[in-house]
Parts: sequence; C-alpha cells; structure tokens
Amino acid sequence: MSAPFAAGTPERERLERLLAIPSVSADPASGPAMGQARALLAGWLAAIGFEGIVELDGGGHPALYAEWLHAPGKPTLLVYGHYDVQPPDPLDLWESPPFVATERDGRLYARGASDDKGPVAAALFALERLMAETGGLPVNVKILLEGEEEVGSRTLGALLERHRERLSADACLSADGARWRPDLPTVNVGTRGIAALEFRVRTAAKDLHSGRYGGIAPNAAQVAARLVASLHREDGAIAVTGFNDDVTTPDPVERAAAQAFPFDADAVLAEVGAVPAGDAAFAPIDRLWFRPTLEINGIFGGYDGPGSKTVIPARAGAKITMRLAPGQDPARCRDLVEAHLIRHCPPFATLSVHHEEGGVEATRLPSEHWLLAAVEETVAIQAGRRPLRMRIGATLPITALFARILGIETVMFSCSTADEDFHAPNEHIRLSGLADGVAGWRDVLERLGRAPWPG
Amino acid sequence: MSAPFAAGTPERERLERLLAIPSVSADPASGPAMGQARALLAGWLAAIGFEGIVELDGGGHPALYAEWLHAPGKPTLLVYGHYDVQPPDPLDLWESPPFVATERDGRLYARGASDDKGPVAAALFALERLMAETGGLPVNVKILLEGEEEVGSRTLGALLERHRERLSADACLSADGARWRPDLPTVNVGTRGIAALEFRVRTAAKDLHSGRYGGIAPNAAQVAARLVASLHREDGAIAVTGFNDDVTTPDPVERAAAQAFPFDADAVLAEVGAVPAGDAAFAPIDRLWFRPTLEINGIFGGYDGPGSKTVIPARAGAKITMRLAPGQDPARCRDLVEAHLIRHCPPFATLSVHHEEGGVEATRLPSEHWLLAAVEETVAIQAGRRPLRMRIGATLPITALFARILGIETVMFSCSTADEDFHAPNEHIRLSGLADGVAGWRDVLERLGRAPWPG
Repeated sequence: MSAPFAAGTPERERLERLLAIPSVSADPASGPAMGQARALLAGWLAAIGFEGIVELDGGGHPALYAEWLHAPGKPTLLVYGHYDVQPPDPLDLWESPPFVATERDGRLYARGASDDKGPVAAALFALERLMAETGGLPVNVKILLEGEEEVGSRTLGALLERHRERLSADACLSADGARWRPDLPTVNVGTRGIAALEFRVRTAAKDLHSGRYGGIAPNAAQVAARLVASLHREDGAIAVTGFNDDVTTPDPVERAAAQAFPFDADAVLAEVGAVPAGDAAFAPIDRLWFRPTLEINGIFGGYDGPGSKTVIPARAGAKITMRLAPGQDPARCRDLVEAHLIRHCPPFATLSVHHEEGGVEATRLPSEHWLLAAVEETVAIQAGRRPLRMRIGATLPITALFARILGIETVMFSCSTADEDFHAPNEHIRLSGLADGVAGWRDVLERLGRAPWPG
Repeated sequence: MSAPFAAGTPERERLERLLAIPSVSADPASGPAMGQARALLAGWLAAIGFEGIVELDGGGHPALYAEWLHAPGKPTLLVYGHYDVQPPDPLDLWESPPFVATERDGRLYARGASDDKGPVAAALFALERLMAETGGLPVNVKILLEGEEEVGSRTLGALLERHRERLSADACLSADGARWRPDLPTVNVGTRGIAALEFRVRTAAKDLHSGRYGGIAPNAAQVAARLVASLHREDGAIAVTGFNDDVTTPDPVERAAAQAFPFDADAVLAEVGAVPAGDAAFAPIDRLWFRPTLEINGIFGGYDGPGSKTVIPARAGAKITMRLAPGQDPARCRDLVEAHLIRHCPPFATLSVHHEEGGVEATRLPSEHWLLAAVEETVAIQAGRRPLRMRIGATLPITALFARILGIETVMFSCSTADEDFHAPNEHIRLSGLADGVAGWRDVLERLGRAPWPG
C-alpha cells in the first residue's frame, strides 16, 4: 500500500484539486473560489459517509458543517479546520505557482498546503480510512471547516452563537495550529489572550511654531512619550495599577512543563538580531507563557519627514496591544490602562482613548483533560517519546470562542510544522507530516473509542 | 506734498514694479525673476547716488551690494534687507493676484509687501530723500540686499566670509524683522538660537510578532518614548546634565524689560487652543526670552495605520530642536543631548544620533548699544512713547551671522507689523507703516549723524 498522499493516490489528487482553488478569504473577489472549495470538501465528506452536510452562515464566508453521530455512549468530537488561505503575495518570490501543488524534496508546495488544507485533508483521509475499513467511526464526529480564519475569524463568534446547538460537542480536536519543531514532539496546552487600544493626546488646536511658543506651550509628542514611558517600570514590569492582579499562577504541572521546556531566549532572539528584554523578575519562558505584555505597536506625533522642522506637535498618540495571561479579562485590562493614562495625563493635554473591539481571553487546557491525554499518548507512540507540553504566546481566537460559546476545550493536533512558510511565499508541507497526520488522527480516534466514556 | 508711497507717487510705482516680480528664492525656476529684482533695485540705488553697486556671490542667489562712504568721522552702517519672497501658494486663497500690488483699506496687498520689499523700499526712499535734499547722507552706508533669506540664508555665511572686508561696518540696521504689534511700540533686542538633532533606536533586525516575542523582546517604540521622557523632569525643566550651565543670566536692564512687558501667556495660548506648560520655576516671559527649550518635533516608530497591528517595532526615533538662550553653544548643546541619550539608552537597544547642521547662537544686543539708543529715540518720538524692549523666542540666522562673521550687532527696524500675513496668502503692508518707515529711517540716520562718534 502506498504512503498516504503519495503522488497519484486518490487523496493526493483530491488535495491537489483543493490546493488549486484560490480560496483567499481576504480577497473581495474570492466568493466563487470559496464556494468551489466548499463544494469540493462537501463532496469528499459525502463520499466518506458524513451526513447533514450544510453551510453555516455567520455573516461572512460560510463554514462547512458535516456530522456522523452513530457511536452511542461515545464522546462527540468537534473537528475543526479551515478552507480559506492567506493571499499569495508577493507572487514573484514563489518558486512554483502558488495554486499549482508542486512536489519538491518530499514537500508539497502550494498556498494553503500547510495552513490549513493539507492538515484538513490528512484528518479527512484518516476518517475516510476508518469508515471504509470498519464501517463507522469510533466516536461521534462533527466537522466544522471555517472560511474566515485568515481574516481573524471575524464572524465565527456570530456563527457559533447562531448554531450553538448543532455544534455542541464534548471537546474540539483542531486540525489547525502547527507543530512547533520537526525534531521535538510537543502538544500545545494554551494561548495568551489579547486586547488592544489606542490613545491620542491633543495639546493645542494646531501645531505651533517652536520659536514663538517654545517654553510656554505644551508638546503633544512629549506628553505621548511620557504616557508611554509611564506604562512600564524601569525594570520592565508593567506599571499599570491592578493590571497583573487577576493573572492566574501556573499550577505545579504547568510550572514543571515550563521548566522542562528547552527554551534559549538568547538564541531565539539572536536569530532576529535582538537581545532579551522584559520583566527580569520572571524567567523568559514564564514571561512568554504565563505573563501578560503591554506592547507599544506604534507611536506617532509631529513631523517625521526629512531634515528638521521647528514645530511643536499639537497631536500625538500610540497604539497598544496587550497579550493577556490566563485569568485576565480583556475589557478590564483595557479599562485599567485607560484609567492609568487618565491618571498620568497632565492637565495641559486632552486625552482620548479608543478601545479596539474583539478582545480575546487566554486559554489554558486543564492538565488532566481526556482529549489532551489521548493526543499525548498518540504522539508519544508516533514520536517514540512523550511530547512536551507547551503554551504559545500568541492568541487563537477560535480556541477562546469555543471555550466561551460552546463551553468546550480545544486540543490542537495539526500535522503541519511551524517552519513550513505558511503566510509567506513557498508555503509547503512535508509529505511525511501528512502521513503522520493520517496515522495520528486515526490513532487518536481509535484510542478515544476504546476509552471508557462516562458522558 | 503727498504721503510717501501714496498711489501715483514715483516711489509707489517703483515698489509696485518690484512687487510684480515673482522673486521666489525657493522656486528652482526663479533665476530670471531674481535677476530682474536685482536689476530694478540696482537702478534705484544708482539713481539715489549709491556707488560700487555689485552682486555678491555666496554660491546661491547673489546679494546686491551698494555703498556711499563720504561721511568721514561718522559711523558706517550696514543696511540689510532681502529681495526674495516666499512662494505665493496656496494661490486660491488670495483675494487679489499675489504679484499685482493692490490697495485696499489703506493696505497694499502683494507677496513680499510686508516681507521684505515694502520695508526695503521705505528705507531706500528715506535714503533717496536725504540724498536729494542734503546732497549726501549723515553717515556712511553700505547696503546688502540678500536673495536667500526665505530659504534659510543658506549661503549668507559663505558670502559674508568671502566679502568680509567689503562688508565691514560699525553696526547693522535691518529693514527686516516685523514690529510686534501695531498698537505698542517695541524694539527687538535679541533672539534665541537653535540646534537640531534626530535620534533613532534599533532593537532588532526586523519588526517582531508580539505573540511570539512579546515579553522577551525589546520594543524600539518603548525605548524611544523612555528616552524622550528622560529629557525633561516632571516639572518641565530640561533634565540633560549641563544643558543649562552656560545660559547667561539676564542683566538688570533685561530683567526690567521682561517685567515691564505686557505678556499674558494664558491669553496668547488660548488663541491657539492651548494652556501654558513648561518649567514652572520661571515666569512665562522668562521662559520665552531667556531660557532654552528642548522640543520634540516628531516621534515615530512602528505601526500608525488604521486599526491595530500586533507588532513589536524594531526601529523608532524622534526629531528634536533646541531653542538656545544667550551663552549657549549649539554644538555643545547637541553633544550634551547626545551624551544624555547614550547614558539613558538601555543595553538592548542600539542608538544612533544625527546632528543637523546649521546651529545658530542666540543674540543679545548690549543694553547700551549706540544704534539701539538711536532707534529707541526715533521710535519714542514717532510713537509718542518710549518703546518697550523685547526679545523674540525664534531664531534669526542673519543677526547671528553678522555677529559671528562681521563682529557687529544688528538692530531690527522694519516698518512691517507681525499681523500682516507674511508667509501666508493676502500678505500686505499698511501704507501708514511705509510712511512711518520712511520718516523713521530718516530720523535715525540724521540722529546718528548728529551724535558724537568716537570711531
């Protein structure tokens, strides 16, 4: 029997057809391509034996839904993936056309190969084999393939609210979220949240001449700089009163995972020409996993053209995002920063704070979660060693939405790897990764089917 | 006898011809117009009886020079003005064409009417009358009409160096530099200097993702903000070590002038929608006249587009100009700020400081200067009250250049007024101001001719 996704196999042909469709959700003209992708996937799902295949509408590109619920007494798994892809630009940096799947050196190159069409295809092929060989699935499965992941899942919340009943499940197994490194088995057990705001200060009705007003007039750029500087202490800690109060202290299992994790901050930063900075009271891995940040994404005010201009800026501001730790509420964090800014704004400046919508909480998979345990066992057998638990410092809105709206935990189990240039030219996936994915998904599902289920 | 510059008079016709020439020094295509303006003025000077009329070259638009040196035992006055004008843009805001002198309500509208062709014409007409009526001038006069004042006098330094001998004089009487207010007689006795620099910080080779690096990577925008914030103390004073050390303390006459000067900082700032700020240890007028500033003209770094972007900026910076007080050396001030920035830059950031060229010292007319005394007496007689002495917070490179290169003081004695929209659409000059100018220049010159001169 040939390896899964080897050239010429039916599943490879199906994946290549899927990769040929430019389902770029950010492109306003992608409607037909998005529909093509859903149609292809719907046909595959029907061929596997899935039922209730339907498009779910949240106000944007619809998601594709399918279910197989004939395993009474067994858990119901929500399988998540997405069929939209990033734009292929810059096109001239691709070595082969982005929408023509091309194999080179054991890797399949195409936009979406790694994020997320390849991993979705691997999961579907695992289901297909199980169904073909055993006449059914070991657990109940609901499949949700999103069409707006690459544009920030902007309508997923509405979609989940609208279809909460249909999507109810015991946990989510996600075919998205890349493996960290090809040489080290890991399982992701959490993410940081996010909140964003922007502040602006105004010190006069217009920019003023520094000769005529210098020494008596307030300077908005100086005020903005002082406000930004006030947000952190000299030692790098966040100086906003109350900001860290709700941060959950990691439990012993989480702490042990952090200590076991091979993380060399100097090396990681040297790769990008930087040296470590941040709150020295915590180890770098703790800062990345368990601590919030308050990041200045941009600061602006006054003249930034060539040469010098003797102007006293009347307006200035900064853009801020916070990566949130477990326990923190995005709205409360924004409120605390706003209160800090109000408190520190001098009387000669007018402050306005704009809260960006769409805050997301951090997620934290319970250390003893049954789906996490099953995935870890599968990975341990596949990799020959027990996977390390890791958290990621970034934010996955999906995981937080599933927790908040559906009340379920998500375990990420993608067969892609973080070095496969997703979101960049020459995106690709290892064929060995696809094969791992098929075997891994099958193993997890069978493992769950064998396990006692109290539900 | 008709009022000077009344419609139809020869001097009015000559001024109108001069105002019709678009001698915009900033316009690369203005060469012919600049030449036309010099030719017209050279003809006028020759008609008055000036000799040695010649164009002086400093590398840019030439200056026009003329002399009359037949008053032995009398001082030699360098009379300064400029024949170039600001660009007329935005054209659609002019109520009459910028290069067609148009009288409305006792004012003559045209680009250059107030700055500086009108005041130059008034001075020349005063000289013309003196020469016609007395057959000579009461003092020796050298005339220098610059062609690059509106582009920062960029070649005046070279010109003065090149023609130092020819331009030697006992003092400069300037037909540039507007009167402060129409209702309050003032004489300007000094200006602040200027120095400029820009700093940039780099914290990584590229912008970083705040999810992947937030908490362990340095943030250039934050570093720039902290550096900017470090430049001032909480109370508004400049925090740069040594920066204020060389500032000359005002003498009792200067201090008395500041106390006598009607200056309402609240009102001045309310006009521009601001409230006072600055070093509270000094009165507002002292801050404007006697104290240096360190102004943030611009701050920049990271993302400033719409919405939010989860980026850790790798580069940021700020533009700074300093208005300098008497006693301060521009180069030393830049060095001190650079040293401060180096000292405050954290080890995880790379700092680069760029010193803008062209620093200018503050100027300070000695309280007992003979030319100042003469001008004050003239103004007192014309206005019916003794003029107040004032300093301006801005910088006049010419005054500093005359002091540094020619070793002479400059007294500003323009008949324009600061409210006449120079550098803006609908520039104009009061015809009454032109008449004041003719009478005033004549009175000063006669006064100087009568005074004992030890030179």
